Amino acid sequence: MAPVHPLLWRSFRVFQVYGANTDVGKTVFTTTLCRAARLMWGREHTAFLKPVSTGPEDEADDLCNHVERHAPGVLRRTLLQYDLAMSPHAAAKGKSVPSDVDLLSKVHQFASRMAARGPGWLFVETAGGVHSPGPSGTTQADLYAALRCPVVLVADSKLGGISLTISAFESLKIRGYDVETILVFRDDKYDNEQYLKDYFTGHHGIAVASLPAPPPKTDIGADTEIMSQYYEEESESTATRRILEHLDRRHRARIDRLDSMCGDAYKQIWYPFTQHKLNSPDNIVVIDSARGDFFQTLVSKPGATSINQPALQPSFDGSASWWTQGLGHGNPSLTMSAAYAAGRYGHVMFAGAIHEPALALAQTLLHSMKSSRLTRVFYSDNGSTGVEVAVKMALRAARLRYGWAAGTDIGIIGLKGGYHGDTIGAMDCAEPSTYNEKIEWYNGRGIWYDYPSVKCVRGQWAIEMPGALKADLGDDQVFESLSDVFDLDARRSKHKHRAYEKYIERTLSNHLGNGRKFGALLMEPVVVGAGGMELVDPLFQRALVDVVRRSAKLFDARHRHRPGNSDPASWSGLPVIFDEVFTGLYRLGRFTASSFLGTEADVSVHAKLLTGGLVPLSTTLASESIFKAFESDDKADALLHGHSYTAHPVGCQVALESMRQMQAMEGRGEWDWAKESDWSGCLGGRARVAKAELWSIWPWDLLDWVSNQIQCVAGTWALGSILAIHMKAADGTGYKSNAALKLQSFLHDGDRDGNASTSSSTRWNVHSRVLGNVLYIMGSQKTTQDDVAEIARLVQRALVAH
Amino acid sequence: MAPVHPLLWRSFRVFQVYGANTDVGKTVFTTTLCRAARLMWGREHTAFLKPVSTGPEDEADDLCNHVERHAPGVLRRTLLQYDLAMSPHAAAKGKSVPSDVDLLSKVHQFASRMAARGPGWLFVETAGGVHSPGPSGTTQADLYAALRCPVVLVADSKLGGISLTISAFESLKIRGYDVETILVFRDDKYDNEQYLKDYFTGHHGIAVASLPAPPPKTDIGADTEIMSQYYEEESESTATRRILEHLDRRHRARIDRLDSMCGDAYKQIWYPFTQHKLNSPDNIVVIDSARGDFFQTLVSKPGATSINQPALQPSFDGSASWWTQGLGHGNPSLTMSAAYAAGRYGHVMFAGAIHEPALALAQTLLHSMKSSRLTRVFYSDNGSTGVEVAVKMALRAARLRYGWAAGTDIGIIGLKGGYHGDTIGAMDCAEPSTYNEKIEWYNGRGIWYDYPSVKCVRGQWAIEMPGALKADLGDDQVFESLSDVFDLDARRSKHKHRAYEKYIERTLSNHLGNGRKFGALLMEPVVVGAGGMELVDPLFQRALVDVVRRSAKLFDARHRHRPGNSDPASWSGLPVIFDEVFTGLYRLGRFTASSFLGTEADVSVHAKLLTGGLVPLSTTLASESIFKAFESDDKADALLHGHSYTAHPVGCQVALESMRQMQAMEGRGEWDWAKESDWSGCLGGRARVAKAELWSIWPWDLLDWVSNQIQCVAGTWALGSILAIHMKAADGTGYKSNAALKLQSFLHDGDRDGNASTSSSTRWNVHSRVLGNVLYIMGSQKTTQDDVAEIARLVQRALVAH
Repeated sequence: MAPVHPLLWRSFRVFQVYGANTDVGKTVFTTTLCRAARLMWGREHTAFLKPVSTGPEDEADDLCNHVERHAPGVLRRTLLQYDLAMSPHAAAKGKSVPSDVDLLSKVHQFASRMAARGPGWLFVETAGGVHSPGPSGTTQADLYAALRCPVVLVADSKLGGISLTISAFESLKIRGYDVETILVFRDDKYDNEQYLKDYFTGHHGIAVASLPAPPPKTDIGADTEIMSQYYEEESESTATRRILEHLDRRHRARIDRLDSMCGDAYKQIWYPFTQHKLNSPDNIVVIDSARGDFFQTLVSKPGATSINQPALQPSFDGSASWWTQGLGHGNPSLTMSAAYAAGRYGHVMFAGAIHEPALALAQTLLHSMKSSRLTRVFYSDNGSTGVEVAVKMALRAARLRYGWAAGTDIGIIGLKGGYHGDTIGAMDCAEPSTYNEKIEWYNGRGIWYDYPSVKCVRGQWAIEMPGALKADLGDDQVFESLSDVFDLDARRSKHKHRAYEKYIERTLSNHLGNGRKFGALLMEPVVVGAGGMELVDPLFQRALVDVVRRSAKLFDARHRHRPGNSDPASWSGLPVIFDEVFTGLYRLGRFTASSFLGTEADVSVHAKLLTGGLVPLSTTLASESIFKAFESDDKADALLHGHSYTAHPVGCQVALESMRQMQAMEGRGEWDWAKESDWSGCLGGRARVAKAELWSIWPWDLLDWVSNQIQCVAGTWALGSILAIHMKAADGTGYKSNAALKLQSFLHDGDRDGNASTSSSTRWNVHSRVLGNVLYIMGSQKTTQDDVAEIARLVQRALVAH
Repeated sequence: MAPVHPLLWRSFRVFQVYGANTDVGKTVFTTTLCRAARLMWGREHTAFLKPVSTGPEDEADDLCNHVERHAPGVLRRTLLQYDLAMSPHAAAKGKSVPSDVDLLSKVHQFASRMAARGPGWLFVETAGGVHSPGPSGTTQADLYAALRCPVVLVADSKLGGISLTISAFESLKIRGYDVETILVFRDDKYDNEQYLKDYFTGHHGIAVASLPAPPPKTDIGADTEIMSQYYEEESESTATRRILEHLDRRHRARIDRLDSMCGDAYKQIWYPFTQHKLNSPDNIVVIDSARGDFFQTLVSKPGATSINQPALQPSFDGSASWWTQGLGHGNPSLTMSAAYAAGRYGHVMFAGAIHEPALALAQTLLHSMKSSRLTRVFYSDNGSTGVEVAVKMALRAARLRYGWAAGTDIGIIGLKGGYHGDTIGAMDCAEPSTYNEKIEWYNGRGIWYDYPSVKCVRGQWAIEMPGALKADLGDDQVFESLSDVFDLDARRSKHKHRAYEKYIERTLSNHLGNGRKFGALLMEPVVVGAGGMELVDPLFQRALVDVVRRSAKLFDARHRHRPGNSDPASWSGLPVIFDEVFTGLYRLGRFTASSFLGTEADVSVHAKLLTGGLVPLSTTLASESIFKAFESDDKADALLHGHSYTAHPVGCQVALESMRQMQAMEGRGEWDWAKESDWSGCLGGRARVAKAELWSIWPWDLLDWVSNQIQCVAGTWALGSILAIHMKAADGTGYKSNAALKLQSFLHDGDRDGNASTSSSTRWNVHSRVLGNVLYIMGSQKTTQDDVAEIARLVQRALVAH
């Protein structure tokens, strides 16, 4: 979905008026507030907006007339008018219906024009109740959430109104709305006011204010007279004044808080992976909220921009919030799943117990992996703990099978640059590097293979051999399509494959000959993420797996093939661990990245996208032969690892919903537009039939252009939701490099001149992260083709300007 | 709150009928379903229950008469009747009002009696809308949630009804209700039915069914005639039959799933800290849901009990779900906080950014710690990662100050049995033990002090010196009150204190003399948790801190006191890390456990109760002098640690609400009943004025009785929400001991004969965990005095039976 522009200005206050039900007096309250605002802030201007109005035209006219008559001097506007007195979606049937984005854009345009006039007030009145559907059918609570307007909720003062008011409030709250006050008509019979006051003050700290009920409706003419008197009195009443003063204070408090946040954070937060000496308050992005693929960030401090500039702007979340986002920020289904599990369980202890979301998620994962090996699910909190669990599993299994003594120094086999997390055990799985070399307890335990990597260079897919290994692995290779690179069936048993295997075997023999022992092969399948966003030649990873699995004799010469090991689901050689924390669960377009390698792990770790990007959770899947290694009569032989929130129901329920949504998207072919076969029109029209089903949301045009046109780019690649641009780096590659920072900075400055409609009020930018000389941009699994196209254009402009 | 008994029987189906609004036709639908159930399941019985009815008595009579007339043969009952046609809370004003627990108990009694008759149906009709307040003022959605009845939601078919129906549904869903179907009257004008069908099928997979609207109400006599015809037709209609068949299927599916869960879990889950060879499906507790301090667990498999026995029973969560629970399971405020943050942000990346809940939580923690040292907050995911972060912080600070080379082997100073988590770095902080000795990469790095522990023995508080250290530390000491033990001002500078310090210094000197280097003092203040639930003599811990802080010369002889270190907030000697993951945040009754020691940490780790027991989150607080150690011009000198979900908004928002609630409880004196001064009546009436403000929810009577009466108890203690009973263990203490298992088993068998009303249908039990020879029971911060008393009685019976 295209970026939505929040309605926040420093001295122009926008409030949205929602009703707990239809016919609760939204217009009466709004008119009163408008009129009172004119009285109290005479030099400012006040506006009234009804985005969608239903009912006969004369009634709609009535609405504007009503406001005009009773709150003279207030600017008023209705954007869409439907004749039928029904819910807008029904009234709009058969009519031309604007998309949600268009409607929000119209609302934003009106508010921007009002804000441009200077300080003032705008009340945006919704139609019906909070979930009354808008013209497109999206309910208003969902439709308007990204506008981030604070809410004035008009309660229902009738019988049953308490329930309706609380439920309406909850529907708003769980979508991130800030309800600033609740207004209700006084009613001596039902006195909902008193209950609501106690309830909302006690439970939510929200003030409830009341006004006398307006006189009952008579005929139009009399109505005018009587209502005039009502408005005259109420707009000058203490109660009304207090409401407006409260709203004014809340607006100022919000702005003040946003303005002070980066200063406070600079003083009080210790940031991950941040050299604070190089940090400054100006470098800290203040995130007010987020929706879909976009953050809504504070534009800048007061004084730096005119008070009439918007205070917030959309920022494309170009790192998918450290690679977590799959289904968009503020996704209502994920919210509901989290809230349901919180309501049903909170958290319940998992050792010795089972609950529905944990079991259902385990079953979904085991089923969806389509693995003949994986049968068990172990839960932990994040990728790092998930990897520690995996390593504990694998090392024990290997040590027991090979009969190594406790205390034997056992390492892992991995890839150079591989990254598995920041707890010490996970760090120890990575080769010494900038990430870990200064960490006091870090002790890299293993050997790490250099590997051939894949990039698009001058419009072709090059497999580049590491310089030092060219003698072993041979020359670089070039393929016309990425599918050809991933066509392992075609590539196996050819010369390059044999060279890979020979090299891997020889290296292994050398290390083993030196008396080293290894307990697992651990790697991120297909993409080395934090270690430089490198696409690894899948054939090389496959060769690693194959060699390790057939090399039991190498790992322990005394080992004899036991009959029990003839089970094809049993691990052989060494347990193979795939760290799919980054690459799994549709990041690269498939449920499991292992399928790209045409092989299965013995232990598989999943996190990040697992919960669609909402809360931490990790699963370590294991085969039965790994599991059995921990069975004994001794409790102390068990896998003695656990976290308090193991398999917390909120995480499991959200993960279930996330899996369900992504699998449904795959089933409906929602990513078909991104399949590689659609790239075939490029490259001079040569047919490039996809042999492997690959897709990337980033268009081949972009890769072709970047790799052909931009001198300072060493290569680029895209797969699934990832785009990586490797810059040529004079200062050397690696974490400390600054080569991609200029590009990042341009993207951060944003879309200044992207299209005709771009003005300061519709500006947006891209929030991205760099890894040394690599700039990557990562979408979610919901990023639209249109947004990708916009960002691709921005990237192109950035590269030209670079 | 006392245990609530869920309404679930294997062949007796209970459904709760909620309405999206008042006057939407709940009774018409319920009557139709009742009548149809009689027709379709003629041999079974059908019942109708209206727990609370409002309106003139004749109308209430009408309700029962209505059901009787139109659904003959249906058992019907109204439990409470209020004359006014208002919300029950208002109608009940001035009347005798039953507590929520009493009302639920009456509902349960009625349902139990019906269930005892055999297979059948019960429809429980609520009053008004979902959030209409019950007699006590609690809204029905909150009031009835623990009953776990699946819901039939009657939609509103009028103008605005779409909004009301969706909001009502959401209010139920976020409390863990399972809405099984939505029913609506057909209405050609507004056709809410079509929208609701699309919406609920698409978003929630819930079937929406409709019936024709009943004829408009005329007078009573005519009404009867016309309605008779309506019910006759509708109760035989295909639509109605399908609704009941659907509900019947859903009921059976629920039972079948519950019955199969432990078998499936046994095959597919790899449990934390579990020797699976000793496990069996029967040992796995199936948790259907949880509320307050109680799980709602499956009683047993089919065949094992009569079909008329309840399928679920309340189980007191006696380990506070691995020490996480503070504010009760299914706490609606925590749910709302989680959902609000999910709606406003989802998750947003934290490096280089700030968002409101993360900043507000950091500020709340820093402020509430009242520490002159702690100024910075680092976020991670759980106690184990939080400790790894703390250790990385401390070791770096120490290494740089003392000028030790990178790669120097630096250990920590800790306590024997100390436990800090299961990731390798956290494990390395613990001495070798059953927990870690078989873990391949475990490498205990440090020295661990044995310590004097505190227990109530024969009604007095004994400080027991470790046997081997009696020569150094002197004899055991005895105090009359626990307050005296914690009165460090009085105890300092006395003989025992000097003995502690001397012993600590000498041991340290010996290790340092052997060339060892240390980078931190790390311990759990006051209580060693997983390592045996031991109350440590606070004077000993204080002595450790004091000695370490004044021993800079010991840690590095070349070190000179630099002027910069004269800042009293700067660390001295070694950074002191308090692992408050278990003991902090009101577990022991105070915000920070460090206050019991009268000292402040340089680094402080918090988790578990931090989020009130809902989702994983951890904070590592640090002083500015620790923080500064990472400042340099080199990015690689930064604290290179981070997790994808660092400071995830859901966790931070929930933690904010959790802190707010617990601080408000403290402010309101809600734990005053548990203050130690209230224990003074015991012990022969001697006044035992509390010198330190200590409290324990576990009564002194119990400790006195247990320590005096039960031979096999070595000692016991209680503080805050913890009760620990140390059994004499013939088979040695430690993780492998089985000494407390019998006690645990008795508690699990539960309250068979606790009080007169106890029958199989009101049975509940206690789900507890043991640590070797120690049985502990841990309440939440909301556990009531009544529940404590009940459990205390059960513990007494268990000990006698032991």
